[in-house]
Amino acid sequence: MPGNHVVVYQGPGRVSVESIDYPKLELPTDVVDGLGLKKRAPHAAILKIVTTNICGSDQHMVRGRTTAPVGQTLGHEITGEVVEAGDDVLFVKTGDICSVPFNIACGRCRMCNEGKTGICLNVNPARPGAAYGYVDMGGWVGGQAEYVMVPYADFNLLPFPDRDRALEKILDLTMLSDIFPTGYHGAYTAGVTTGSTVYVAGAGPVGLAAAHAAQVLGASVVIVGDMIPERLQQARSFGCETVDLRQSGELSEMIEQIVGEPEVDAAVDAVGFEARGHGQGAGEQPATVLNDVMTISRAGAALGIPGLYVTGDPGGVDENAQIGQLGVRIGLGWAKSHRFTTGQCPVKQYNRLLMNMILSDKAQIAKAVNATVIPLSDAPQGYQDFDHGAAKKFVLDPHGMVPA
Amino acid sequence: MPGNHVVVYQGPGRVSVESIDYPKLELPTDVVDGLGLKKRAPHAAILKIVTTNICGSDQHMVRGRTTAPVGQTLGHEITGEVVEAGDDVLFVKTGDICSVPFNIACGRCRMCNEGKTGICLNVNPARPGAAYGYVDMGGWVGGQAEYVMVPYADFNLLPFPDRDRALEKILDLTMLSDIFPTGYHGAYTAGVTTGSTVYVAGAGPVGLAAAHAAQVLGASVVIVGDMIPERLQQARSFGCETVDLRQSGELSEMIEQIVGEPEVDAAVDAVGFEARGHGQGAGEQPATVLNDVMTISRAGAALGIPGLYVTGDPGGVDENAQIGQLGVRIGLGWAKSHRFTTGQCPVKQYNRLLMNMILSDKAQIAKAVNATVIPLSDAPQGYQDFDHGAAKKFVLDPHGMVPA
Amino acid sequence: MPGNHVVVYQGPGRVSVESIDYPKLELPTDVVDGLGLKKRAPHAAILKIVTTNICGSDQHMVRGRTTAPVGQTLGHEITGEVVEAGDDVLFVKTGDICSVPFNIACGRCRMCNEGKTGICLNVNPARPGAAYGYVDMGGWVGGQAEYVMVPYADFNLLPFPDRDRALEKILDLTMLSDIFPTGYHGAYTAGVTTGSTVYVAGAGPVGLAAAHAAQVLGASVVIVGDMIPERLQQARSFGCETVDLRQSGELSEMIEQIVGEPEVDAAVDAVGFEARGHGQGAGEQPATVLNDVMTISRAGAALGIPGLYVTGDPGGVDENAQIGQLGVRIGLGWAKSHRFTTGQCPVKQYNRLLMNMILSDKAQIAKAVNATVIPLSDAPQGYQDFDHGAAKKFVLDPHGMVPA
Amino acid sequence: MPGNHVVVYQGPGRVSVESIDYPKLELPTDVVDGLGLKKRAPHAAILKIVTTNICGSDQHMVRGRTTAPVGQTLGHEITGEVVEAGDDVLFVKTGDICSVPFNIACGRCRMCNEGKTGICLNVNPARPGAAYGYVDMGGWVGGQAEYVMVPYADFNLLPFPDRDRALEKILDLTMLSDIFPTGYHGAYTAGVTTGSTVYVAGAGPVGLAAAHAAQVLGASVVIVGDMIPERLQQARSFGCETVDLRQSGELSEMIEQIVGEPEVDAAVDAVGFEARGHGQGAGEQPATVLNDVMTISRAGAALGIPGLYVTGDPGGVDENAQIGQLGVRIGLGWAKSHRFTTGQCPVKQYNRLLMNMILSDKAQIAKAVNATVIPLSDAPQGYQDFDHGAAKKFVLDPHGMVPA
Repeated sequence: MPGNHVVVYQGPGRVSVESIDYPKLELPTDVVDGLGLKKRAPHAAILKIVTTNICGSDQHMVRGRTTAPVGQTLGHEITGEVVEAGDDVLFVKTGDICSVPFNIACGRCRMCNEGKTGICLNVNPARPGAAYGYVDMGGWVGGQAEYVMVPYADFNLLPFPDRDRALEKILDLTMLSDIFPTGYHGAYTAGVTTGSTVYVAGAGPVGLAAAHAAQVLGASVVIVGDMIPERLQQARSFGCETVDLRQSGELSEMIEQIVGEPEVDAAVDAVGFEARGHGQGAGEQPATVLNDVMTISRAGAALGIPGLYVTGDPGGVDENAQIGQLGVRIGLGWAKSHRFTTGQCPVKQYNRLLMNMILSDKAQIAKAVNATVIPLSDAPQGYQDFDHGAAKKFVLDPHGMVPA
Repeated sequence: MPGNHVVVYQGPGRVSVESIDYPKLELPTDVVDGLGLKKRAPHAAILKIVTTNICGSDQHMVRGRTTAPVGQTLGHEITGEVVEAGDDVLFVKTGDICSVPFNIACGRCRMCNEGKTGICLNVNPARPGAAYGYVDMGGWVGGQAEYVMVPYADFNLLPFPDRDRALEKILDLTMLSDIFPTGYHGAYTAGVTTGSTVYVAGAGPVGLAAAHAAQVLGASVVIVGDMIPERLQQARSFGCETVDLRQSGELSEMIEQIVGEPEVDAAVDAVGFEARGHGQGAGEQPATVLNDVMTISRAGAALGIPGLYVTGDPGGVDENAQIGQLGVRIGLGWAKSHRFTTGQCPVKQYNRLLMNMILSDKAQIAKAVNATVIPLSDAPQGYQDFDHGAAKKFVLDPHGMVPA
Repeated sequence: MPGNHVVVYQGPGRVSVESIDYPKLELPTDVVDGLGLKKRAPHAAILKIVTTNICGSDQHMVRGRTTAPVGQTLGHEITGEVVEAGDDVLFVKTGDICSVPFNIACGRCRMCNEGKTGICLNVNPARPGAAYGYVDMGGWVGGQAEYVMVPYADFNLLPFPDRDRALEKILDLTMLSDIFPTGYHGAYTAGVTTGSTVYVAGAGPVGLAAAHAAQVLGASVVIVGDMIPERLQQARSFGCETVDLRQSGELSEMIEQIVGEPEVDAAVDAVGFEARGHGQGAGEQPATVLNDVMTISRAGAALGIPGLYVTGDPGGVDENAQIGQLGVRIGLGWAKSHRFTTGQCPVKQYNRLLMNMILSDKAQIAKAVNATVIPLSDAPQGYQDFDHGAAKKFVLDPHGMVPA
Repeated sequence: MPGNHVVVYQGPGRVSVESIDYPKLELPTDVVDGLGLKKRAPHAAILKIVTTNICGSDQHMVRGRTTAPVGQTLGHEITGEVVEAGDDVLFVKTGDICSVPFNIACGRCRMCNEGKTGICLNVNPARPGAAYGYVDMGGWVGGQAEYVMVPYADFNLLPFPDRDRALEKILDLTMLSDIFPTGYHGAYTAGVTTGSTVYVAGAGPVGLAAAHAAQVLGASVVIVGDMIPERLQQARSFGCETVDLRQSGELSEMIEQIVGEPEVDAAVDAVGFEARGHGQGAGEQPATVLNDVMTISRAGAALGIPGLYVTGDPGGVDENAQIGQLGVRIGLGWAKSHRFTTGQCPVKQYNRLLMNMILSDKAQIAKAVNATVIPLSDAPQGYQDFDHGAAKKFVLDPHGMVPA
């Protein structure tokens, strides 16, 4: 049995790569005890991880903005090869290279039946919804690792139809586990369709993925806003317009200069609760982006909010922010008859569709987010660079399987 | 030419009935000047008003919680008989008794094309959307009157198929101009469908209409929450369960006692920005209801928010509230993947359907909201009684046309 | 281990009750061989059958209108108690009384992911979709029996929340396995909503279920057409209007006499390919009902077609009918911009919702279809009576568990 | 007042350009008499026609496959400049260049309220729905002309935001009046979305427009089938795969060679009732395409049917075909749970979106359909060439306004 290493949170600003046990076909203790399930998991599979990405939502933990304890294993953006499968894994086979949706789901509860795999009722005793390697998300071992256990494997895994083609496109396909579907969910729930003008707040990987998804959905113009010039440059590299939020002035005016009117048809919040105010040196203002997207969206618009908002933030700017209660301009949204869609992306609703786009060369997500491969051992450096605003999406390659 | 009288706002807490001009087939000055339209309106009709109701949203003005000036004419819940029609009114005929959607809409702009008549682009220079007799809503003369002008009459008017039957059911049909569709919109956008468990916050007329609409949509259980015993009694009178919010204790526990779990499938905020906290003597807490409906709705729920939130509230509890910025527990909503639908009900999307329900005796909205007829001259008393929490929906009868 | 008996097709017009093996936690040979799956089924459960109904679609087989071989076991409308569960059945427990959707589905394929459980890709080597006890549907043993094996039990079974209440309402709940969802699917896909006028072709159990479902969905008027007076009487017993198709005259005129115009908003074909022409003594005309529903539905209508159309009918009226090619007035449908939804009802999309309606006393489906309990041993008589047009839905009670 | 010329049907195979009256702001006599409306039309506008295209559906008339009388004026694909507007035209201005949806709609009836402008109730005494210059469609004068009257101009006209840009892109924008929306409607109602594999039957202009629309909607592969090599070449010119239906062999096998499986996710019938069988020299088989699209679409697919099917076809292959009753393999469709959407495209639902795509250079519809400009006087030759299978979309330029 091979060894296993995983990225571990070591306190604010620090991660390390540690040795852990090779996974077993068993549910985590939290789930077993909290939900009264059997430990043995004949529905599970073990994956040898081909790629696993560092995510902006990992940063919330590493920055100390969650209640994640030291020792928390990290990683929920996983692509891997099935190396072992339980007795009740029938349709996924050993050797299949598969994308793993970051949301863990049972496939058997009411929410899964409705396609709402982001809020599965059977994978987390604390609340609906679970993920690998994340605080408060069920105690599942993280996947920035060499091997990982995936429960309900027939339901959770998306096998790629051809191994060679999969490895050839692996830097695109690795984005199917989270950010491409998440960005697409943001754009889709914002109602982006043929001909829409779109604003995406945030040019991190999810923002860039939302921008590319908006293009895939037929947007006529996609505008991305951020404060980091390199990220804005990255957005322009695949055809987006950009606004630099370090500048003074009204966002609506910047948008007017691009599309000829101060509002867009659809907007996506790809920032979440660690938002900053506009202008040089502005501090954290957690509802800024929410209020921005209302301001610059037309009446009747839908707003997609894949950016994370939390119920507990130890580092919040005030008591209200620390419990996720923010100063939202709901009066403005109401006057404009806005509709808001929040929450985790249910990855399974989109990953097969987007896989088809990648395999037919109709989407270039790796290029859009500037996928950058590093070895697992360099994960600490990757976290640091990403936190400093690198316009890169770091892809860990634990087994050196990514073609050069 | 007959005379005309209308209800007029006279300052906080006071309304009176005043004489005004008989309406002309002309657009209001604000609209003509602000949007550069012709004054003459061949698309308009004059209606002799059969019934016109006092609405909870009128109360916001009369309580001084808006910027309505003294002299503002009131009334947007209008049912009337066509007595004059412009040259380009082709399909509605003199003598037709019609329901008038409270939202004024042109039928010719992008928003109207999409069915979003609550945010028509051509009826209000200040913002999308207009209404009769309402501050900031285009300067259209109010309809708590004897006669009123309705623009774009072919588009706005819903004629009843049979005059005698219409008069027979007039106390139900009068609710088609606003509260029955508004309540239905709340329930519908909250995703109420066959078998849903539903919570409606607020037992005023819109809340009761939302509760009855939820029944029409197939809810298995409808729970209504309020602080006024008479209104809760009214809710029980047509088969709703109730929770009394003057009681201490968690709302989720009260709900658990009724449906066996602490959450419902769908929730409607029929209160809006003048919400009070729970418990005896609680003061105004404008985000209470929003936060309540998130708390007691299941993960994945949709929330319908027909209750009004405003961008300017001179009487708001603090500076933020005065600009419509409220402490919303968005982190909680996000964790539960909630979807929020806000804004005015686009009445035309529902009024024909609900008319069919009334005329076929499948809906009893007049009974649900306790429709109570008074003469136009008693409007001041009606406003006062309604403000004191009467469990009644006051229907003004300017011409004595309502059958006894 | 207890014995087991099941209803078996013995050739045109004949069924008998035969002894068969007690079920095992194993997949049927057809599925194992045809799809290359393991025989052992840790995902399966054995049910002691509480109720199991005779279905109109069983009649197609028994009348010899399919290629069902002598010896075909019958029965796909099953409600039962879990008495044994495989290793990977985690959420359904021994002792749970459950409804079994007639469509067998894996819960793990693309179609199941999309909620299309009627066309699961993993349960039938011959084509998408499977059912218990039905020709060409995967070789699964029929459930007009004492015991039955249900695969993918966590996915397929709908447990009732309370055993006592379940037995009390068992004659309603037994309709969740097929006809109530199937009728609802017909009405739902026909776009029935608040205030709709609806025509349902056929007053057999599915037609009556569609009619009741239309009521649940908020129809203002439901009209049912048939040629059997007892069935029409049954439709009238719960508030439907009826048209007697033995009469001469245009269907559109009969409808006009009821709703005041010759068309309805929505129509359901609950008859399928064994349709007869109108008028006394009319012979089989397999496209009659399809053409009827186009004729009497308004332009822009959607048509729900739960009535069965087949790809092979040995008894078809001509060569075309024998391969399911019928003379459809598609030109008429096109001129009216009709939309047609065909196919098996995906029961899981509706059964939980309808269960809630039954348990909250909002739906009375047993009464609507005249549920009539008989012992398993009387199944042959039940088939015969049903074939002769009895206005009854026969419910078999293999263990005498149905309360008197 | 300028003169006016229009293309006129002169009997099977023949059209000519004739002088007619300059249009007035009046409704056609058929509509006035049949629907009891006023002749004077203050809602109407006169357009100077910039471009007007020859359509495949005109060919049905010119081939004698409809009941069109000699003298029928032709043309329903109109783009023009407003030169005169009635008193109640408020939002469209003289000088605006506008696209005219081929479906004439009032904007005031129930169908228009629902967005179903293809079946407006107020524009054709014979049935819901109307068009310019078409038999049985209300008697509206055709628009292959110099000038045309457009009723309900504020509702029907789509003004282009910038005149210069409009003339620059006029060969693309001219396709907004019919074929681009019609093709899009076909693809959209077939459920084409991100990643779909798509089959389009027919490589005439509507088929090519459907193929390009499928690309815009995010299809991963688009396959077009036809029997004319030049048209297939045209399809390949913008990235489609093709199948040549003159070849023997199963269509499903041809598709399998392209996408690796014998079925696609979505299919569009862009042929209609004048379909021919497959293979060299096959005769007319009017249900061939309908049955094809069922055969090669996966279970659960939706089928978009913009291809025209009629209720009366004097040249039909047999008595049934002559009344639009065709041998449809409905049993096959039912077994696959197919959904069928038929009817005229409601152009207004899509034209603004597609205009945005054209103006932002995201769609190249003129290139896809090979737009070819000819003078109005060459219309007879254009009809002839088109009938002989030219892989061209003929655009008439009555005033020489199309830039070279």
